[in-house]
Formats: sequence, C-alpha cells, structure tokens
Amino acid sequence: MKLATLRTREQGTTAALARGLEGYLPLPARNVGELLARSGWKELVATALAQATAGEGAGVVPAHQANLAPLLPTAGKVICCGLNYADHIQEMGRELPEYPTLFAKYADTLIGASDTIKVHGSERVDWEAELAVVVGARLTRAGEDEAEAGIAGYAVANDVSMRDWQNRTLQWFQGKAFDETTPLGPVMVTADEFPAGHGFAVSGRVNGELVQYGNTATLVFGPAKLLSYISQFTTLRPGDVVLTGTPGGVGMGMNPPRFLKDGDVLSTEIDGIGRLENRVRIHQGANAAR
Amino acid sequence: MKLATLRTREQGTTAALARGLEGYLPLPARNVGELLARSGWKELVATALAQATAGEGAGVVPAHQANLAPLLPTAGKVICCGLNYADHIQEMGRELPEYPTLFAKYADTLIGASDTIKVHGSERVDWEAELAVVVGARLTRAGEDEAEAGIAGYAVANDVSMRDWQNRTLQWFQGKAFDETTPLGPVMVTADEFPAGHGFAVSGRVNGELVQYGNTATLVFGPAKLLSYISQFTTLRPGDVVLTGTPGGVGMGMNPPRFLKDGDVLSTEIDGIGRLENRVRIHQGANAAR
Repeated sequence: MKLATLRTREQGTTAALARGLEGYLPLPARNVGELLARSGWKELVATALAQATAGEGAGVVPAHQANLAPLLPTAGKVICCGLNYADHIQEMGRELPEYPTLFAKYADTLIGASDTIKVHGSERVDWEAELAVVVGARLTRAGEDEAEAGIAGYAVANDVSMRDWQNRTLQWFQGKAFDETTPLGPVMVTADEFPAGHGFAVSGRVNGELVQYGNTATLVFGPAKLLSYISQFTTLRPGDVVLTGTPGGVGMGMNPPRFLKDGDVLSTEIDGIGRLENRVRIHQGANAAR
Repeated sequence: MKLATLRTREQGTTAALARGLEGYLPLPARNVGELLARSGWKELVATALAQATAGEGAGVVPAHQANLAPLLPTAGKVICCGLNYADHIQEMGRELPEYPTLFAKYADTLIGASDTIKVHGSERVDWEAELAVVVGARLTRAGEDEAEAGIAGYAVANDVSMRDWQNRTLQWFQGKAFDETTPLGPVMVTADEFPAGHGFAVSGRVNGELVQYGNTATLVFGPAKLLSYISQFTTLRPGDVVLTGTPGGVGMGMNPPRFLKDGDVLSTEIDGIGRLENRVRIHQGANAAR
C-alpha cells in the first residue's frame, strides 16, 4: 500500500491512498503520521476504499492535480543517521563505526516531493539521497524484532546539507536543520511490500546527472537496528521518521567539491518507492547573525 | 511575572501564575508554551488575576500541593548551545568559538522541577546547569534587537548528559536526548523583570555540594545573539526553548571524572528565577541494542 499526504484547496492537508495511475484517494486523517497514530488505521483505509468502490465518500484526486505535501508534516521526531554506507564512510576518510552517528532535525525542515528547496544564507548546499524509515508503533527500549515489526513503511528523503554551516562547529545540527530543505515523499510504501532485509537502490541526480548511487543492503546499521538503537534512549512513535544515511557521491566529497546552484534540480529516487524532484533556490543577501 | 506548568488531578496540565508564598493561580491554557502562543496572553493573565481577586474563577493551588510539570511539555524545539562559557570551554580544552555549537533535543527529554531523572543504560551520567531562554515570538532570520524583544522569559534547566553515549560518536545527540532526563522550571520569569544584558548566577549542586558556578554575563553568545543566530536557519516560535550552555564544573572535567550515582540529588539554581531539585535513578540491566 502506498500512502501520501496531499495539500488540499482549503490550505490544509489530507492523508491519501495512492492508486497507481488513477490518482489519490483521500483518507480521513490530516496526514500520514496522523493516520498511522490511529489504532486500526488499515481498516480505515479499507473502509475508504470500499466506499470509493461503491461510489460513496471522497472522490479520487487525479495524479496530475495532486499537490504532494511533506509526507509527515507534523513528525515529532526526525532522526538522522550519518556515516552509514561503507562507501560514503570511506569517501569521508573515516573508519566503519561501532555505533550509529545520530543527529536530530525538526519537522520544519520537511518539504514535499515536488516543492522548492529554499535556502537562505548558505554557499555550500549539498545533497544526501536517503532511505527514510517511517515508524508505525510506539517503541521504547525495543529489541530488533520489535523494531522491525514497528516499521510502518519506507519513503525517499534528501538530507540536503549546508556544509558551510555544518562545518562551523563540531555539531552538524545547524547545517542540517534549515527550514524547508529536506524533501520527504512522494509516498510511504508499507513495510509488508518488502521482505525484512530487502535492499533499496537509492540514487541522486543533479540536473539529470547521476551523482549518487547505493543500496541499503550495504548499510552498517539497517532500519530495524537503527530504530532499536534509538529507542534505547528516546521513545519513537507512529509518524516519527528515521533517515538512514547517504551513500557515496556527495558534492563535498568530490574533487574539487561541487555544490548546488540556484536553479538546479535535485532528483532523489528509490526503486519500488518513487522519486523526489526538487528545484533549488538559494537566497544570499542580508544575514543578520553573520 | 512568574509562570509555571502544573500537573492537574485529571492527568493533564495547566499553565499557572506563581503568586509567591500563596501558591499558583491556574490560567486557561494547558501549559506555559500554549499560553505564550496566544496573542494577548498578558491580558488573559490579568483577567484571571482580576477574577481571582473578585473571588471568581479557579482557586489558587497552595504551593505545597502544586505538582510542577516540565515548564514546556510540548515545546516544538529544544535547542541547546554547548561550549558557551569561557571557563567551561577552557575546562574542556577548547578555544573560544566563532560560532555557537548547537544541538537539538526533543520535548520528551523534559521533566518537572522536582521530578526524578530516570536514566536507563548509562554509566556516565553528568550534570550541566543552564539558563533556559523561552521564546515568546515567531522569529525567522531575526536581528538581535528583534530576538531580544522575542524573549518571553527565563527558566532553569539541567542538560543532564550521558557521557558514555555522547562520546560514542562525533555527534552528541544520543547522549543528550534521553527521555525524562532534562529538568526545566520551576517557573519562567518574564523578561521584563530583567534588563537586557543582565547576568544570571547559575549554580549546580550534587547532594548539596556546590559543583558548578557561573554567571551568564560571561556567555560567549548571550540569549539574544543565540536566538538571532538560530533563527537564521530555523523559525523559533512561542514556547520553544534555547538552553544557553553550562559553566565550568561538570563531572567529566574533574580529575578523576565524577558521575551521578543512583539516588543522588541534583540541584540547579539561578538567582532570581528558582531552583530545580531532582533525584537521580539509574537503571542498568538489559539494553537490547548493545
């Protein structure tokens, strides 16, 4: 099952079931995170589907009219793992880690699958194509099996990073937490469509040119291991999301380093889930704190 | 004016006005953050006060019956600054920074002024007494004057840190984001009670023994500068909170290093605001992810 969050004409959002070429069937929840937080949400989807088949309820939104919001606009936790692909770790000149390197961002960073990435005051805007794992259960000090069962599904993200800000201090947060810079979507594909341990092919393109490619089968810390680890110190809840890190090929690792320019189009794709395509707008100019 | 968030008998919370020895006057908002998010919240307080004087409305909760919740239980952003006191920076063997070192935590970390600090699975639990700055306005790319005017008030916090987890990787987040380990309170004193640039005397005690002492007048990045800087990349909103860093005297910096033990009482005080007093409970045992 593929779920999305759509913007509505009334300035709000709605969760929706993606129905292939046909479009999106609105569901009675404001976004995918809110849907997942309801017990029995799968029955809710089944009911909406039965109503639609019977010609009742909300009509399907045609794909070409759908306006994709960030998948989880109200996510309580957006936790990211760095240095998780063996090839990217080597690219950055580091050794394979014993523990996952984690950092946090807030839901304000998130944008939809076709939204513009709006950057203010950075000259080193870089890409990080990533598999996003959407949490579907409350996880507190969960073992790996419980964490695996607590994965609601998977989505595509790009942890766009302002390297100048990221490298100002030892802590990456400020370069990772720019509002409206992290596309997340286009849909969440439910975990039941993939066997545990399934590898996702993740790719990133700039203006159509392939710059990143990796497979999550090579992750040092896979989805269930990451969720279990994080849940040892903080509770994960339905609608939270964990970004699993990026494969080799980021701009900062190139020789010479390469960064996104105003007007560039960043594409991020995972086979079996979908594709993000986001234009980049970089606003320089007055920056009160510099 | 001093504001607090109290737990109610109905398992909820309420914002309240602290009235010295008399106790707390409940206000019509679920917590201080929610109160600050309302336009005209000061009139709301004045109305509640007038009603109480007239013998109408909710009665005052006597101080000895008050159960202090975390001041901002639903804070959207809890952003912390590290390495901000010259003496603490030197203690850690680092140079004075050009930019603030920032990291994020989530509201799940927060507890009330008398709550137990509950740690699971760390053997190096350390203290960090801090001034907390509560945001009272929406700040996006704000200059320092706007940021100064956007400070709602000040509170006391202790950024209790699990040094073993903090030092597992380059990013501190996992050692800083343990649920229910960051006391915040007991009240927020509104900014109008202090002139801009006022220094707060911050102290930390373990079982009554003074271990930390500093004055925020020596901060490298003061409250307005921090809020302005953060607002360059992410919007701050009423009820968000920024922890300004800790002075010298943390356990990790002692020779030999000293950490909190199960049963210890951690006290954190700021002159003119109030005091947190939190017992520490450290649960070892099974840790599924290790």
